Amino acid sequence: MSTNKNFTLAVVPGDGIGPEVTTEALKVLDAVAAQHGVTFERTEYDLGAKRWHATGETLPDTELEEIRKHDAILLGAVGDPSVPSGVLERGLLLKLRFTLDHYVNLRPSKIYPSVGSPLANPGEVDFVVVREGTEGPYIGNGGALRVGTPAEIATEVSVNTAYGVERVVRDAFARAQARPRKKLTLVHKNNVLVHAGHLWTRTVDKVKADFPEIAVDYLHVDAATIFLVTDPARFDVIVTDNLFGDILTDLAAAITGGIGLAASGNINPDRTAPSMFEPVHGSAPDIAGQQKADPTAAILSAALLLEHLGLAEAAKAIEDAVTADIEERTGSVRTTAEVGDAIAKRAAG
Amino acid sequence: MSTNKNFTLAVVPGDGIGPEVTTEALKVLDAVAAQHGVTFERTEYDLGAKRWHATGETLPDTELEEIRKHDAILLGAVGDPSVPSGVLERGLLLKLRFTLDHYVNLRPSKIYPSVGSPLANPGEVDFVVVREGTEGPYIGNGGALRVGTPAEIATEVSVNTAYGVERVVRDAFARAQARPRKKLTLVHKNNVLVHAGHLWTRTVDKVKADFPEIAVDYLHVDAATIFLVTDPARFDVIVTDNLFGDILTDLAAAITGGIGLAASGNINPDRTAPSMFEPVHGSAPDIAGQQKADPTAAILSAALLLEHLGLAEAAKAIEDAVTADIEERTGSVRTTAEVGDAIAKRAAG
Ligand SMILES: CC(C)[C@H](C(=O)O)[C@@H](O)C(=O)O
Ligand SMILES: CC(C)[C@H](C(=O)O)[C@@H](O)C(=O)O
Repeated sequence: MSTNKNFTLAVVPGDGIGPEVTTEALKVLDAVAAQHGVTFERTEYDLGAKRWHATGETLPDTELEEIRKHDAILLGAVGDPSVPSGVLERGLLLKLRFTLDHYVNLRPSKIYPSVGSPLANPGEVDFVVVREGTEGPYIGNGGALRVGTPAEIATEVSVNTAYGVERVVRDAFARAQARPRKKLTLVHKNNVLVHAGHLWTRTVDKVKADFPEIAVDYLHVDAATIFLVTDPARFDVIVTDNLFGDILTDLAAAITGGIGLAASGNINPDRTAPSMFEPVHGSAPDIAGQQKADPTAAILSAALLLEHLGLAEAAKAIEDAVTADIEERTGSVRTTAEVGDAIAKRAAG
Repeated sequence: MSTNKNFTLAVVPGDGIGPEVTTEALKVLDAVAAQHGVTFERTEYDLGAKRWHATGETLPDTELEEIRKHDAILLGAVGDPSVPSGVLERGLLLKLRFTLDHYVNLRPSKIYPSVGSPLANPGEVDFVVVREGTEGPYIGNGGALRVGTPAEIATEVSVNTAYGVERVVRDAFARAQARPRKKLTLVHKNNVLVHAGHLWTRTVDKVKADFPEIAVDYLHVDAATIFLVTDPARFDVIVTDNLFGDILTDLAAAITGGIGLAASGNINPDRTAPSMFEPVHGSAPDIAGQQKADPTAAILSAALLLEHLGLAEAAKAIEDAVTADIEERTGSVRTTAEVGDAIAKRAAG
């Protein structure tokens, strides 16, 4: 291709293994860029634990507005034991997801035949979780009274709207429509969380009418965890709320060979703000800086980023390179950079 | 023993396979009663779907007060597709748990070597989940506005108190203290649900001082699901909130050979009201009335009931009978009653 389109990327390497795996994701992005006629212009943001210790800032609004001007965001990982739990998660990661209206948190799960699963007989697993990203118990509504006394009370409020539920449900149906098996499973807990649960259930029932080809079923979240270990191949597209999606996607990653391979996109389908791509794994401070982290999840997140930018072929080049690399993994230890180099080389070839 | 102590049991067989498995649990209870010098006087309550269809009642207060007068409650299963989701769960099952102050929802998980696990290498799994039973997102606080319109909003409020958290945390520590490995894992999501999460975390930190022998760690709920499939043997006692406990215990049941074996006790440790024992599984309406259900979970729940009533030897007789029965399962199909007969015979022997 001769038209050399330039995309701007905001890069937030973050904490722990975040910077290492981000380096490899960018390496692989660059490797495919040239032959797909694009360039990526990067701006790095030093947000995370170090910045918070130095300045007390998690994500200043001015910086958020700068980040917003980019075509997409690549994020490594956020969180460090030296920072009180919640400060960076709420003040940085969730602030990005909420402010940039990432209402589709997309998390594909696939078993690579050569990668071990903790399950004895996982079967052919290839599903995607569409996790709502801007509502539910994640919104930070709640509080505490008389903290530290025997009379303390702490609340967390899950807020769910027809507006918020319908848009993510429609997105999930559209994704199911584009997949060969055309199956959608709603996961909630509508026998206990009846108000939110019934809103979700009614919304799925309503939107279903516009997608007559899709086979729809419903599972309580507890039952869904059972199926994820006894028959994960039954799933095609799962749509669920923010908290249940968090739980199910870690479990899904675990049964498909581990959190080292699980990619995600925090997507704003309306494109009113840039979408953000990040591995599902956390900052893993225990192995940070040691070149021990598997950058595959970050690299696959970069592939999701390319797909979102309309560069499906480039995305496919990365996915194929990852598949080929995974198939040849022998169990011999490679550094983070070696894995990145190997995948970059294949993706460029 | 010559002193023939009589215990009163309120029995709620409930829906679906509930009646079938309850019959077997009672059969096994009777089988051990005589030689442990006790009798069980039963009153059956026809609560559940049929009753609701006939009268619109889920659990009238007069009946609740009658049930309250018993020494313990044995419950089969609750819920039927013909009843709107939540009606029986909230109006019957959760009403019992909440009104009778069952703040310790005890759910042991153990791998029987002869029972298949979906995990390739489960290891030696033997842990117990202490699920909080009277607070959290289960309390039914929340509501909906403008239902059925595009402006609908639905909330669910999780309420957590120092009072409620400390008492269940103390119970969990005491259980860890009584076990050989002396390990306690708190599971929550304190990096997102910061108010509730910090209350739980601070409470565990505080109570820890009274149990210096216990090794304590913390896992986010998403990470806990990963460990449950990659290294379940790491767990000894897990303490967690009502919703996370619901999710984790179904997953725990699945990896230890299935929901057909998972027993539970809804315990009021202060004995201000009777405790209630029930299998973790649901009413499974698809196989109801066909003698296909495995009554083992209900039978093991009866063993928990005996233990709670101070009849540790009788409880052990049931547990040993179940273990022996499980070890000889050949995969040949037995009816619900046949399994109950076999276990009752062993337990009496
Ligand atoms: C770090 C944390 C706030 C985050 C979440 O709960 O969403 C993570 O677990 C994830 O799944 O991306
Ligand atoms: C039936 C339902 C209300 C119940 C719960 O969510 O507690 C069940 O799943 C359980 O685990 O006992």
